[in-house]
Order: sequence, then structure tokens, then C-alpha cells
Amino acid sequence: MEETKVIHAALLGAGTVGGGLYKLAEALKEELVKKTGAQLVIDKVLVRDKNKKREGIPREKLTDSWQEILNDSQIEIIIELMGGIEPALTYIKEALHAGKQVVTANKDLLAEHGAELFAAAEERGCDLQFEAAVAGAIPIIRPLRQSLAGSCLTEVMGIVNGTTNYILTKMSEEGMDYKEALDMATKLGYAEADPTADVEGYDAGRKLAIMASIAFNSRVTFPQVYTEGISKITAKDIQYAKEFGYVIKLLGITRLTEEGIEVKVHPMLIPDTHPLASVRDSFNAVFVHGDACDDAMFMGRGAGEMPTASAVMGDVIDVMRNILKNSCGKIGCGCYKSLPVKNIQETSSRFFLRIQVSDRPGALANISGVLGNNNVSIEQVVQKKSHDGVAELVIITDRVKELYFNDAIKILKGMSVLKEISGIIRVY
Amino acid sequence: MEETKVIHAALLGAGTVGGGLYKLAEALKEELVKKTGAQLVIDKVLVRDKNKKREGIPREKLTDSWQEILNDSQIEIIIELMGGIEPALTYIKEALHAGKQVVTANKDLLAEHGAELFAAAEERGCDLQFEAAVAGAIPIIRPLRQSLAGSCLTEVMGIVNGTTNYILTKMSEEGMDYKEALDMATKLGYAEADPTADVEGYDAGRKLAIMASIAFNSRVTFPQVYTEGISKITAKDIQYAKEFGYVIKLLGITRLTEEGIEVKVHPMLIPDTHPLASVRDSFNAVFVHGDACDDAMFMGRGAGEMPTASAVMGDVIDVMRNILKNSCGKIGCGCYKSLPVKNIQETSSRFFLRIQVSDRPGALANISGVLGNNNVSIEQVVQKKSHDGVAELVIITDRVKELYFNDAIKILKGMSVLKEISGIIRVY
Repeated sequence: MEETKVIHAALLGAGTVGGGLYKLAEALKEELVKKTGAQLVIDKVLVRDKNKKREGIPREKLTDSWQEILNDSQIEIIIELMGGIEPALTYIKEALHAGKQVVTANKDLLAEHGAELFAAAEERGCDLQFEAAVAGAIPIIRPLRQSLAGSCLTEVMGIVNGTTNYILTKMSEEGMDYKEALDMATKLGYAEADPTADVEGYDAGRKLAIMASIAFNSRVTFPQVYTEGISKITAKDIQYAKEFGYVIKLLGITRLTEEGIEVKVHPMLIPDTHPLASVRDSFNAVFVHGDACDDAMFMGRGAGEMPTASAVMGDVIDVMRNILKNSCGKIGCGCYKSLPVKNIQETSSRFFLRIQVSDRPGALANISGVLGNNNVSIEQVVQKKSHDGVAELVIITDRVKELYFNDAIKILKGMSVLKEISGIIRVY
Repeated sequence: MEETKVIHAALLGAGTVGGGLYKLAEALKEELVKKTGAQLVIDKVLVRDKNKKREGIPREKLTDSWQEILNDSQIEIIIELMGGIEPALTYIKEALHAGKQVVTANKDLLAEHGAELFAAAEERGCDLQFEAAVAGAIPIIRPLRQSLAGSCLTEVMGIVNGTTNYILTKMSEEGMDYKEALDMATKLGYAEADPTADVEGYDAGRKLAIMASIAFNSRVTFPQVYTEGISKITAKDIQYAKEFGYVIKLLGITRLTEEGIEVKVHPMLIPDTHPLASVRDSFNAVFVHGDACDDAMFMGRGAGEMPTASAVMGDVIDVMRNILKNSCGKIGCGCYKSLPVKNIQETSSRFFLRIQVSDRPGALANISGVLGNNNVSIEQVVQKKSHDGVAELVIITDRVKELYFNDAIKILKGMSVLKEISGIIRVY
């Protein structure tokens, strides 16, 4: 009998996802041979402290030396699950230069240094796979690069941060306020000790930069993404949105327009009948529109030990098949266009505007006059009962260039009739 | 400058999807070169009558001779969009034997002759790609074979027939009866003149056989799939289901169990909060559960000229990349297991049972006694107001082996208290 070929790999990082990946590789040992024709052996696991015990990983596989892994010519696949920019960036570049295949789940890295990493991969004809970097277990990178490659994609929109979706779900369904829901998310381990990257939309922005680059074949980096978080959303906003038939979600939206790529992360009111509206708790979902494929949506677990490890393993299996067929580097960077990214001020939105005004004759006329003079037309308006001479106005506008809307807001702020701007949220 | 490589293809069939594919290939001419590095040229289009004019396809490309295509050694890709078993089966086998790559959207063929076709592809190391055969534009085949290959999948469940989903949506939302909704679907072109394959669940059953084979790595053929259609569903069933918090969908369900594979298509009550419940009109969706990836769902256009053509084109692009990398046949059949398929009688379900009984003392006790004696326990029961001495009972049972349930029904049918069995539908 022919001996089964062995493909050697090294794992960088033995945290939650790294540990999960090692476990999965053990559990799928036999299956992998049947699926690919080769055996996967993880020879080395790079950790900071090799004396710390790692559940399930034999001590002798632990190393704190990257050079030891880099110089091991047997090792063909590097699975990078350390996260962060450095030293991951250096390691991956060195691995690619050495002709090793790379699988990574590192969105920070790809969203900022994607171009140089893909260039390095292409130079040596190596695989650089990253399905797990966006939306965890949801297959979205491969569908965008392959299955939907026969369509011209024009829009990608998604809920790609589980922490904020959990918080918004709690606020919406249990009437919690922001602080309370965030505390709950922290307690359950959904939110990190410092939740900034999640709640301010940076995490979603990085994932969106990656998806925009692939969908529109033009490199978009994280600094080009407009981000706005959910920390200013109140229970009242959510309640009023509900009255208008909407739910509030933190959405990443990227669109291909005549003038360039729009790419932004912000809270948004979406109709409660929209497929994304029913995506609850820590689930993620990505909605794609293309000229030929029409609408498609992908939903699933966006994070977590095993869901993310499973996405990484899907990539590892693909790389193993490529190694056996000698076809690594089959799909390159794909950014063969160089499209401009539009300034947020030049994009258009509908707005939900909640303001407190003096309850005196002509107040509504004053406000709507200013809006009208700045090209902001009102689609719906509700005046709530007044307390202590202050009335609450909730306005939904028609689609308007963000620049004009902001001009109107600036003028409103200078008016004595306006007591407070309580909420501004975009509307789908 | 280096000359761009040209990859030659032939199209079998110039119907709706074939015409769409040709159009798409023209529209994406430039993009394809950038995406793959090669140019795609469709040299020949096989049609029955080459004198019939085909919108957008130059007359000189039309041929009625398969041999002419088969013997053209320049042609590397065969795109089969004729449908039906023969002559497609013969053509594809001959193409694979000749070492040509094949892309097909032919579910009938794969659901019945998948094993021999994949064997032929593997023998010559050829690609046999078929994303469009299941759920049109929704990427599901590639996710199952690649992205989710790192999970042990245990359940695949889907709405994979747009015609029946359209009919059930109309019945549910507009109170139409079955006949009326079917007529509307026919008028709009969603249903064919002979709607049997759709409404009886055969079409969904074929797609399910293909998905089960890939998800569980064990060949399942269409004759092994239990199918039950929607023609017996009434507006009343839908209304009562709604009262219990359910919607009725035609679902294809396949599960991996200790004793083998369960694979069945039938109408089912699903909770109105389930993600599949919100899949309306002619949309398709597939829900997947695996041990590592947890729940994932894919939704989109399951049919139509351009959505289906877009899925075919995604495969063609993949094949082009494989040709250029000399890596065709990278992913084989994948059916390396040989698992038994369970008889429907041995599977378990919950049931919705709507019956008419004599409105006399002890009727409910009689009925529930028979159910209880046959291991069918009642979860919910509602007795509707009686008319002319006949009362309507709506029962939802706990999970029970189908064999026991059918035994109970047989006994009920022999009882004088039972006037009619008006509806039996499974419950999720």
C-alpha cells in the first residue's frame, strides 16, 4: 500500500481559536485523510511562554522561537491565529517569502496591510487564505471570490460584529439601556474588558474593508472606512424606531457607485421585514447584491472558539488540496482595479432625527423650514407630548447628501427653538 | 506583451439559462481576463434546431452535432444546460472521458447518476462542477465541500423549490387556496405547465439528494429520498398553524444519525421565529448545522435566468483557474463513506393532525386513548366549535416514530367517532 503523504503545519498562537483549531485537527485526523488524500500534522505551536501548560497540546510541540518554525523546511502551512499587527505581519511575510502557505484569521492585519501581504503571496505563488477573518464560521470570503464571481457585485451589507448585535438585541427585546446591555455582554464574555473596538465599529470596519476589497476588486483599507459606534443609541431611539416599523442594527455597508466605493459602518434603522432584521444575539449575517445573482444572504456564528476554528480548518483543507495538486496561489489578491473611496459627506442617506424643541407656535415650521432650505425633505414626522414646555420631535427624512444634512444640523444647533439633538441615526 | 491565453468552451442548450450564460459571458469578457488571466470564448452552442434564431448568439456558433463539439480538441470546457437525463448523461460522460472539464446545472442527472459521473471525472482528473444544480445563485455546494469541510455536518435543511414557496407564501399571506395560488404561479411563469415535479417535491428531493451526498460524504440518490408534496395543504391548515405560532413550508431535510442518513421532503410547520420562516416568495434558503460551525444559513434566488447563469459562471471561472494552474479534479466526489439511508417509518417527527369527529361525549377521550396506546403523546390540542354535530380537533403531538404514528392513524380510521382526517403535517 502506498504510504499516505504527510503535510506538516505550524500553528502561531494557542489562545481560544488556536486551541480550538488544534482540537479540531485531532478530532478530524482520519476524516482529513479521506477528504484530501493527505495527513495533517501540526508539528509546532508558537507561544509566548512555552512553560505554560496548554490543554490538549503536547508540551514538546510548544516553541517560543519563530525562527525554528521558519527554518523548518518540512513545514508547508503556517496557521496564524495570534492576532494583532506585529509580530504577525513580519512572520506572515517571512513565511510567504520562504514559500510557505498561510492561513490566517487576522482581520486587523488584512484590513491594513492586505496589499503587501497579497503581493508577497503572489510573488511566490503561495496561498494566503483568510475565511475566518470575516464573520467567523460564515462562508463569505470564498463565495465572494468564487461562487459569486460571475456577478458584478454592487452592494455588501452586514452585521459583522456579534458583541454589538448582542447589545442591540438586548436593548430592543428587553428594553435594557446601553450600559446595562454592555455589562451583560461583558459578563457573558461577548464583550472584551476594553470594548472600544467592538462598540465603536472598528472591528466591523476592518471586516468591511476586507469584504469591499474582494467584492469590488479594488483595495480598501481600514482607515478609509467611516465608522460610527452604538454607544449613543438609547432605549428611546429603539422604541421610536419600532413605532415606525424599524429595528436598529450596527451595519457595515459598502456600495459600488459611478463615483467610487462607499464604505461605512454605523447604526442604522432597517425595516423589521428585512432579512437582516431577524439576525439576533451574537449571530452575524452578510447580505450581498449583484446584477446577475440578485440578493443573497449568509448567516451564522461570527465568532467563538469552534465556529472560528472550523472556518480556519476549511481553509487548511483547501490549502492541503492545493499542495497536493501543486496549485497554490490559484486565486490571487484580485484587486485589479483602483477605484476611489468616496468621502462620507458625498454619500446619501435617509436620517432618523430625534430632537427636543420649545413647545411654542411655529416651532415645527421653523425646524422644517431650515431642513427644507438645505435640501432635506421630511418623509415622516411625529410630535410627542410636551413636558415642561419642551416637545420631542421625531423626523425621518428622505434620501439626502450627508453634506446637506450636516449643514442643516449646524444651523438647527444655532436656533433658540432647539433645546437638544437627542439622536441622529441613518435609515435604510 | 504576452498574448492572453484563450480557453475555449461549448455550451449545450440555449434555453433560458443557456441564453443567460451566453449573455453573461459576453458582458464579463474583460472582467474574466482580469479575474482569471485568460479569455473565455464560447465557440459552439449545441441546439436541437440550428435554424431557429437565438437572441444574442451568432448563428455560426449554433450546431446540432454533439460529435462536432466532442471532437474539437480545442474545447476544454463543456457547459451543460440542457437538463433532463438523456442525452445529457451520455454527452457528459463522453466529455469527461475525452478529458474535458464539465460545468452543469442538471440536478436530475446528478441526483440519479452522480456516482458514475464523479467516477468518470475522477478517472480522468477532470472537474465536474455543479453549483447551479442546487438552489440557483445561492452558493451552497462550494461552502459544503470547502468552507464547511472543517466541521462534521449533522443537518441540512432547506427551502429549495421556489415555485412551492411562492404558492405557500400566497396561501399564507393572502389567504388564497392551493388551486388559486398555483394558477397565479403558473400565470407568472413560476410554475411549469405540468407542475408535478415542483408541487410533489421531486425537484426539492433531487436537490436534497445532492446536498446529502456532499454534506455526509456518502452517496444518496433521488429514489432514496422520501417525498411528499404540498397539494393537500389547505388554507385552514395554514390558518391553524398560524394560531399555534407556526408557518408551513415545503422543506427538504437530511440528518446524520447513528443509524444512518434521514432524507425527506415534505411540508412542515416551523416556528415563525425560525430563520427559514421569513424566507418568502420564490426565494430559496438552506440551513446547515455542524458540530464546529454551529448554525449557518444561506439565502437567495433559487432560480431564474440570470441568478442561475451567475452560479454557472462562478463554476466556469473556477474551472478556468484550475485549467491555468493545471489543477482540475482537485476536489473529487467526496463520497468516501457508505452509510445506510433510513426508512421514513424509522424516523421520528412531531405531527400536526386535523380531524373531524362526532361531537359526542367521550370523543376526545377515545381519540387520545388510541394515540396514547400507540406511543403518540399529545403536546397541544384545540377543539373548534362544532357544526352539524361534527367537531374539528387540531392536535400537535410530541416527537414519535413515524411507524407508531401511522399505526395510530390506521386505527383511528376504523373508528366510528372519526368522520374525516383533514390534514396531517409534520412539525419541526
